[in-house]
Amino acid sequence: MNTKEWYADYINQTVNDIKYPVEPEGLYAPIAYTLASGGKRLRPMLLLAACEACGASADSAVNQALGIEMYHNFTLLHDDVMDRADVRRGRPTVHVKWDDSTAILSGDAMLTMAGRLVMKVVDDKILRPVMELFNTTAMEVYEGQQYDMDFEHRDDVTIDEYLNMIRLKTSVLLGAACKLGAIVAGADAATADSLYEYGTMLGLAFQLQDDYLDTFGDPAVFGKAIGGDILNDKKTYLLISALRCGDDAVASEIASMFGVRSDHKIERIRQLYVEYGIDRLCREAIDYYSDMAEKSVLATDLPADAKEFFVDIARKSRARSK
Amino acid sequence: MNTKEWYADYINQTVNDIKYPVEPEGLYAPIAYTLASGGKRLRPMLLLAACEACGASADSAVNQALGIEMYHNFTLLHDDVMDRADVRRGRPTVHVKWDDSTAILSGDAMLTMAGRLVMKVVDDKILRPVMELFNTTAMEVYEGQQYDMDFEHRDDVTIDEYLNMIRLKTSVLLGAACKLGAIVAGADAATADSLYEYGTMLGLAFQLQDDYLDTFGDPAVFGKAIGGDILNDKKTYLLISALRCGDDAVASEIASMFGVRSDHKIERIRQLYVEYGIDRLCREAIDYYSDMAEKSVLATDLPADAKEFFVDIARKSRARSK
Repeated sequence: MNTKEWYADYINQTVNDIKYPVEPEGLYAPIAYTLASGGKRLRPMLLLAACEACGASADSAVNQALGIEMYHNFTLLHDDVMDRADVRRGRPTVHVKWDDSTAILSGDAMLTMAGRLVMKVVDDKILRPVMELFNTTAMEVYEGQQYDMDFEHRDDVTIDEYLNMIRLKTSVLLGAACKLGAIVAGADAATADSLYEYGTMLGLAFQLQDDYLDTFGDPAVFGKAIGGDILNDKKTYLLISALRCGDDAVASEIASMFGVRSDHKIERIRQLYVEYGIDRLCREAIDYYSDMAEKSVLATDLPADAKEFFVDIARKSRARSK
Repeated sequence: MNTKEWYADYINQTVNDIKYPVEPEGLYAPIAYTLASGGKRLRPMLLLAACEACGASADSAVNQALGIEMYHNFTLLHDDVMDRADVRRGRPTVHVKWDDSTAILSGDAMLTMAGRLVMKVVDDKILRPVMELFNTTAMEVYEGQQYDMDFEHRDDVTIDEYLNMIRLKTSVLLGAACKLGAIVAGADAATADSLYEYGTMLGLAFQLQDDYLDTFGDPAVFGKAIGGDILNDKKTYLLISALRCGDDAVASEIASMFGVRSDHKIERIRQLYVEYGIDRLCREAIDYYSDMAEKSVLATDLPADAKEFFVDIARKSRARSK
């Protein structure tokens, strides 16, 4: 196994090495811009690490890693248009720097390019399972995004519905990344499935940690203002839990602040979360899914250093502050 | 070979039979709406006919036919957002009936679903060539759409650039449809390539005929107002030819009307087209590409009734009035 730093460098290098056609510039420049903006590179890292854990070299899965990173960045590009988000990773989003049409069309091209990259397997025997996993995952991600948008207009979202939404929107792609690495390395089905489970559970913990940090993170470390989710009445694990904690007074006080945009609202709702133990509930859920991720990988026959690598990612993820 | 009517019925039936997940409705209902809106079904018809011409049954290529129709409808859905088009086939477009986010996300899902359908080949040996043709064609279509958008801001577009744009945006998908049918039927490479050439040439003639009808069609038959391209200063074969006919007075008179939106503009520019033989130029180009299409298919070893079928489509296409 290589180190996380090695994988990140390797991915950034291969992303930089992608050769785009020069023309039409309006189609390809936004793609290069989006890919170059960095990010955690978590998905391709998991994919390459899973491939090495299963006994093949990182090189053998580089196209799948790039494909999954391309797909992930495509979803961000289109999500930013849908959410009217102006900034991503500290830079103007594509629909701001160019325009909506550019963001839509370049995103479409990224989706097709992602499929092309994922298809580049050496062994034709795994072409169909690889593409089926990729396509099924892609459909799940759209479904998750649709539920996320639907939830904006609903006040009766349950925790189960919320967990299903983040599983679809975020987690399955991490699961698929792990499983693709395993498939490319020729791993047996049980190992591939365990790695899928690892990635999916890690993804749930990861998203819940995002929810938690948006409200309880340290503004100096988190990198963006705290309380954005509260301000926007975003149906997070915290908000849904508070609305469903069984205390009508809490639910109605929170509901009375929907649409309000003030620092007082952020403070007051955060206070309610702490008072009613909603923050603790959220941390318990994070620990639960993080433990599940660890267990999935520990139950495999993978080498000790591989298990250690994946367990370390799960532990660092739940302890992260940004 | 079956008749055109048989293919159209068969496609409409299979489109109607597509089972979509019930949830999330916001993702799948717009897809069903888009596919149900009809259209000429030209691409799947060509695909099925090519498959039968090469000796296999239409059934064996039904998934590829649906996939190409799904892809085509995805491009229309996203193009309508980019072009802010409110009506398509007499019905409100998805971004009007729902909203932009719905149109973007449902379109994304259609692109993935298209790939999934095209992948459904029985023989794993053709999986890679089929997907490579599909992905290459998809990228070309995006490039064509990008050039089309770029041309809106340019007054120096050449006829060669224009033909390349419509080749990418429109023609290659017809070529790919024909070739996919041939590949699925197990045709030899030369036949598959000839059918690709047929489809591409037919596509060029088809698009030029669209340009022609938008200006010279019979309003009672054409189904929409005549002169829309002129009104919007759309860089069509006619407009580019007029600007580049070598007569500075014509070019500057037309340029002086850019941005104007009046019936007089439509009349005057149509008059100039006729006076300077631009309409004839356009008809010559249509006939040229239509002839090329016929020649491509006549040069193959396909059965006589298959050749007749494809030649008939080319002839009817160039003679169509709507």
